[in-house]
Amino acid sequence: MSNCNSWRSLIMRALNHNRALAYSRYLQLATIRPDGRPANRTVVFRGFVNQTDQLKFITDVRSQKIEHLIYNSWGEACWYFPQTREQFRLLGKLVVVDRNCEDLAFNQIRQSTWQELSDNARIQFNWAEPGKMRTEASVFATELCDQSTPLDNFSLLLLQPIEVDVLELRGEPQNRYRYVYLDNGWLREEINP
Amino acid sequence: MSNCNSWRSLIMRALNHNRALAYSRYLQLATIRPDGRPANRTVVFRGFVNQTDQLKFITDVRSQKIEHLIYNSWGEACWYFPQTREQFRLLGKLVVVDRNCEDLAFNQIRQSTWQELSDNARIQFNWAEPGKMRTEASVFATELCDQSTPLDNFSLLLLQPIEVDVLELRGEPQNRYRYVYLDNGWLREEINP
Repeated sequence: MSNCNSWRSLIMRALNHNRALAYSRYLQLATIRPDGRPANRTVVFRGFVNQTDQLKFITDVRSQKIEHLIYNSWGEACWYFPQTREQFRLLGKLVVVDRNCEDLAFNQIRQSTWQELSDNARIQFNWAEPGKMRTEASVFATELCDQSTPLDNFSLLLLQPIEVDVLELRGEPQNRYRYVYLDNGWLREEINP
Repeated sequence: MSNCNSWRSLIMRALNHNRALAYSRYLQLATIRPDGRPANRTVVFRGFVNQTDQLKFITDVRSQKIEHLIYNSWGEACWYFPQTREQFRLLGKLVVVDRNCEDLAFNQIRQSTWQELSDNARIQFNWAEPGKMRTEASVFATELCDQSTPLDNFSLLLLQPIEVDVLELRGEPQNRYRYVYLDNGWLREEINP
C-alpha cells in the first residue's frame, strides 16, 4: 500500500500533454435520476479546489443534475484524453455550492470562480430556464453581467473522489490502476486492463 | 409532433463531419452499480444495428458493466463531437448479446461484428480477467484469434434509446432538442439550452 495521491498528478500531466485540445478539459459526469435511471452529460473541468483532490465544475442551479443530487449525491466522472489515450474514472460524492452556502471558504471560491469566467460563460446564467420548452430568443440575455458578484443561478459542483480507475491504452498490453481512498490515504493497485 | 427520427441522421452527419478524429466514435456510457451508485466509462460506437435506432458496442462478458445490467438495464450514453461542438445524450435500455443468445439474427450480428474487428481488438478477449489484480504479462495473449468464430468472452452491447437530448453549442445562443419515443414514433421538442 502506497500512501500517495498520484492520480491527481497523472491528471495534471495529462492536461499538460493534451493542452493543444481545448476540449481536453471536457469530461462526462454520470448521476442518478430520481427514478433510479442513470444520467450523463459533459461538464468542463475548472481546476482542483485549493490543491486538494476535489474537482471543480460549475452549473446552473436550475439544471436537472441539481435535482438528481438531492436524491443521490454520488457521481462518476469519465475523462478521456485523446492525445495520450488515457481514461480516468472518478467515483465520489458531489457537493453543490450555491448562493445559500454558509461556508465562508466555499463562498469565496464560488465568487472567485465567477470572476474568472468569460463574459459568454457568465451570460448563460441569465438565460431562460434550461430544459424547458424553448422560449423566445429575447430571453437569452446577451448583456454583460456584473463580473464581481455571481448571479443567483450560479453554483459550483465539487466532486470528491474516493475511487479512481486509470487506464493507459498506450501500454503493452495496456496499463490500469485502481486508487481507493482509505482512512489513512490512497491505496494504489495495479489491475488487469 | 413530428413522426421522425432525425436524431439518428444528426449523429450520422456528426460522424461524417468529425471523421478526421478517430476518437469521435468514442462515447461515455453510464450504468448503475448494484449498490445504486453510478458508473461511467468510454465505449466505442460500432454502428447502428441494421438501420434501426439501436447503437452497437462490444464488451467482454467479464467486465463490470455486465454485472450492472443484471441489476439495472438502463444506461445513458453521452457523446460529444469536438469538431462540430454537438452533444448527444441517449437514454435507453441495454441488451447483452453473448454466446448464449438464442436469437438467430442477433447471433449473426455478434458473429459478423467479431469478423469486422481488428486483430488487436480480438486478442483482448483472450486476456486475463479485466479489473482483477494484475496478472503476469504472459496472460495477455498476443496470438491471433480465429477470425470467424467469436471467443466466448465476446459480447455485443445494444442500446435502444427512448430519449435523446441534442445540444448544439455553436448556435446563437445555442440549440437544444429533446426527442422522446412514444407509441407511434419520435416526438421532437425544441427546448432551452
